[in-house]
Amino acid sequence: MTQVRFALAQMDTCVGDLDGNADRVLDFARRAAAGGAQVVAFPEMTLTGYPIEDLALRATFRRAAWQTASELATRLAGDGLADLFVVVGTIGTDHETGKPRNRMIVLHDGVVWAGYDKHFLPNYGVFDEFRIFSAGDKSVVLEMAGIRVGVAICEDIWQDGGPVADLAAKDIDVLLTINGSPYEEGKTHVRRDLAGRRAAEVGAPLVYVNQVGGQDDLVFDGGSFVVDADGTLLERSPMFMEDLSFFDYDSDLPKQVPGTIAADPDPDEEVYTACVLGLKDYMAKNGFTKGVCLGLSGGIDSALVAAMAADALGGGDRVYGISMPSMYSSDGSKDDAADLARNLGAHYDVQPIEPLFVAFQKQLDLDGVAAENLQARIRGVIVMAYSNSKGLLALATGNKSELACGYSTIYGDAVGGYAPIKDLLKTRVWQLARWRNRAAADGVGIGGLKIVGNEGGWKGQPVDGDVIPVNSIVKPPSAELRPGQKDSDSLPEYDLLDQVLEAYIEHAHGRADLLADGFDPDTVDTVMRLVDRAEWKRRQYPLGPKVTALAFGRDRRLPITSMFRE
Amino acid sequence: MTQVRFALAQMDTCVGDLDGNADRVLDFARRAAAGGAQVVAFPEMTLTGYPIEDLALRATFRRAAWQTASELATRLAGDGLADLFVVVGTIGTDHETGKPRNRMIVLHDGVVWAGYDKHFLPNYGVFDEFRIFSAGDKSVVLEMAGIRVGVAICEDIWQDGGPVADLAAKDIDVLLTINGSPYEEGKTHVRRDLAGRRAAEVGAPLVYVNQVGGQDDLVFDGGSFVVDADGTLLERSPMFMEDLSFFDYDSDLPKQVPGTIAADPDPDEEVYTACVLGLKDYMAKNGFTKGVCLGLSGGIDSALVAAMAADALGGGDRVYGISMPSMYSSDGSKDDAADLARNLGAHYDVQPIEPLFVAFQKQLDLDGVAAENLQARIRGVIVMAYSNSKGLLALATGNKSELACGYSTIYGDAVGGYAPIKDLLKTRVWQLARWRNRAAADGVGIGGLKIVGNEGGWKGQPVDGDVIPVNSIVKPPSAELRPGQKDSDSLPEYDLLDQVLEAYIEHAHGRADLLADGFDPDTVDTVMRLVDRAEWKRRQYPLGPKVTALAFGRDRRLPITSMFRE
Repeated sequence: MTQVRFALAQMDTCVGDLDGNADRVLDFARRAAAGGAQVVAFPEMTLTGYPIEDLALRATFRRAAWQTASELATRLAGDGLADLFVVVGTIGTDHETGKPRNRMIVLHDGVVWAGYDKHFLPNYGVFDEFRIFSAGDKSVVLEMAGIRVGVAICEDIWQDGGPVADLAAKDIDVLLTINGSPYEEGKTHVRRDLAGRRAAEVGAPLVYVNQVGGQDDLVFDGGSFVVDADGTLLERSPMFMEDLSFFDYDSDLPKQVPGTIAADPDPDEEVYTACVLGLKDYMAKNGFTKGVCLGLSGGIDSALVAAMAADALGGGDRVYGISMPSMYSSDGSKDDAADLARNLGAHYDVQPIEPLFVAFQKQLDLDGVAAENLQARIRGVIVMAYSNSKGLLALATGNKSELACGYSTIYGDAVGGYAPIKDLLKTRVWQLARWRNRAAADGVGIGGLKIVGNEGGWKGQPVDGDVIPVNSIVKPPSAELRPGQKDSDSLPEYDLLDQVLEAYIEHAHGRADLLADGFDPDTVDTVMRLVDRAEWKRRQYPLGPKVTALAFGRDRRLPITSMFRE
Repeated sequence: MTQVRFALAQMDTCVGDLDGNADRVLDFARRAAAGGAQVVAFPEMTLTGYPIEDLALRATFRRAAWQTASELATRLAGDGLADLFVVVGTIGTDHETGKPRNRMIVLHDGVVWAGYDKHFLPNYGVFDEFRIFSAGDKSVVLEMAGIRVGVAICEDIWQDGGPVADLAAKDIDVLLTINGSPYEEGKTHVRRDLAGRRAAEVGAPLVYVNQVGGQDDLVFDGGSFVVDADGTLLERSPMFMEDLSFFDYDSDLPKQVPGTIAADPDPDEEVYTACVLGLKDYMAKNGFTKGVCLGLSGGIDSALVAAMAADALGGGDRVYGISMPSMYSSDGSKDDAADLARNLGAHYDVQPIEPLFVAFQKQLDLDGVAAENLQARIRGVIVMAYSNSKGLLALATGNKSELACGYSTIYGDAVGGYAPIKDLLKTRVWQLARWRNRAAADGVGIGGLKIVGNEGGWKGQPVDGDVIPVNSIVKPPSAELRPGQKDSDSLPEYDLLDQVLEAYIEHAHGRADLLADGFDPDTVDTVMRLVDRAEWKRRQYPLGPKVTALAFGRDRRLPITSMFRE
């Protein structure tokens, strides 16, 4: 009889932080050993962080990563952890071609004891691995703690054939995969079903360790798990937080015994938490310690972003909300912005833009869209002034519907270093705002999410009612850049617009497909014209988290200059 | 004896403009036939434009491209050109996998008569082809007009093995390659040497047809050519302009007879013309017919950009220069800006920013860098107001040295839809300005470049002296955002800085390499710190032409969030 305890070290790595990542691995390894583990596995490219893009091509970086791995093996042994098998990801070099490789290494006995190079290099959506790595071509079975462990890295289990097909013939006891699989709505079940099929293919339990945390515009959701050869879920780690969980393999049992299984979250909570974690990690990893600033218009977009920021920062005291009313701002909007800030305990300044608008108009005498954009750009200047003078990260509050349709002002409301809701359609923004108001302030959500407001409120005053003012949710959306303006003057109603955008952008439906989907020709042509018009501005939008299959930004790589109309 | 006349149709395509590209092909084909050609060859992906990025993945687009190709074959026959062999590039579909292919087709006899799929799909630098296409695996010899023509597409001749190696054993008479090879300084000779080696490998002349024109941040330089099996240059088309040239192949001759060979241009003229063409095509292809606007500071960067714009537009009457002096602007700077505008015949407005600065400061009371950025952002608002109200393309005037070091204000001087000199180091900017002043107004340069000013000047007044005021070239660079400010307060002297940037960015030298290059540690650390600091802003810079091997933007794909310091 052989029993082996695996530790699933779901760690939040940072790209390029070789020393920091190695220190964290050591810490997790100590805790894994203390918990009785013989094998501890970390996410893909643990030491280097993931994805490293063209940093892989810099020789200095590859040498430093190799140095880090060797030193870590020595440090583990020095800490009395020589017997532990520490499975980490890093960058390697293909000695024939000199090209980088996406590598798994095992640190054991004070040395880099074994290695495996990823076979399948994804080259679609957000992935660019074929560009920077050369592919491994060997399948590897490791004898660890008396059992036979086959190994794979992320995409290796998503493609048929390759290392998993090889391992099926090699009588392995466990299939261990290390992953950097970014979050995407609905992907949890896809991943688990896939893993179940691979476990059946090799006839052994599959241990799936995933990365967690935000990295630029990706969010990794963790949710590591173990699935048995018959598809039974044996273990599941929580989503959106670091975690160390264990799985006990027993060679005598035909079926393994299930352990702790984290529940599947509510879909709104899941997306909300992904956005909060993306923002939180972007701030932490880029050294924005002083907080964020953003314009508060009284509308739903800025309200939701402010709530996310307060939750990311553990309170409103590092959130600087700026109300920038114009001659066209309604009193209701100003009140809603003030109420929201108070409910979140955020800083709240009022900076009227009328005197500035008048000063510009004295020189420029603009009208129409140019005058509307001027208002938005004066606000952009003010937000950036707060950012520069107080060292704050400016947040852009645009949602995916308006960004897709170009219904925003470049260098105006689109300024900011991070755009937390840039991948949420407007109808989803409303849903999340309602969810956020329902969420209890005293409970702790998935990913350790703590909801700010509701209970404590500003300066300890209890909030009477909803944190996000109901008026911000129910009123007709307006940019308030001219008297009586409504979004619906320029755009189809959001319920309809979002359906068309979903089909056109996410599912790549062309005009004929959209008509076949049942949308009327006028709406289709309006939306396609809006999106076309907005497309050329695309590359100048700020960074934000990716939540759906095909977000704007680098994974929608359309040419700027294109005459094609589908 | 067999004689075959090839026409090299060096065409400026536009991505997605299927109908427009097809019309142009028809026009070139008519002229080729009128000139006695039996075979006319166009650049890579003629009908679709190149590079098409993820547009390739849209099924609607692929269907439309196929329709266009079929109709074009019919139209050619209808025009009495059924006998002509018309070799164009387009997108195909791999019928096994459904994936797109980079395809060459031959239109002949009213049908799509033959096809060949590109084998090697470049996946480095600016190229992303492996991401979107599947690779062809057949080599093809076409019997055209009585001779055996082997074919290849661009990267196919850059890699050893593959189709060229196959063709070496197939006794071909001519090797025909169609290309979309972007401009890069010094690449002309690399291309020609490579082609000579491939011609020797197959033992036949190589016909190289290249794309010309700007497409987003790429500029294609044309310069199509024919090289004999012994390396003799037989024909060379001009750079940076559309062209139809001919090559007569004679099967009886052991060595072919050289025809017209365009001269190699002066290196400064070459780079200057690349920048002008990039801007000209960006405007034409995106429908910016009304002209450009830009801030004129009296400094060298904005002066050079204004001169490029005047040359791109064939005169200064669609160039709107805006002088935006502050309390820190010197009289000399204001005079230099005015002189430049007059010399170019450009519009010239003065918009003082002091009243606007005072209005903002009354509310915000900023100091230090925040107050400096405020000035730059007020200017950004004014430039965008001109852009919006007059329908002009705003030009950003930043150079590569300052962008690399973050010595610019995001949403300030960095605003604009196109940045003509974003890939030129500061020392190169000075060189090109001096070259521009030397260039004669009455001569026509490469690419048909016509120099504006010198002769005609503003409202027909002759310019007395240099178009770009000498003072703009020789004075110490300053942002003029505080009294007595000089670039050298914050940056190493440009002669030195540009050398370090060249090594660090273009040649990917790490810290140790830079020290080995002979740079002193203080300078190296200063420059690396500046570049690191600037790196996270990178993705928000506007688009511009690519001139060197490794420009900023999408071909320098470093993670935003990275802790690595080399």
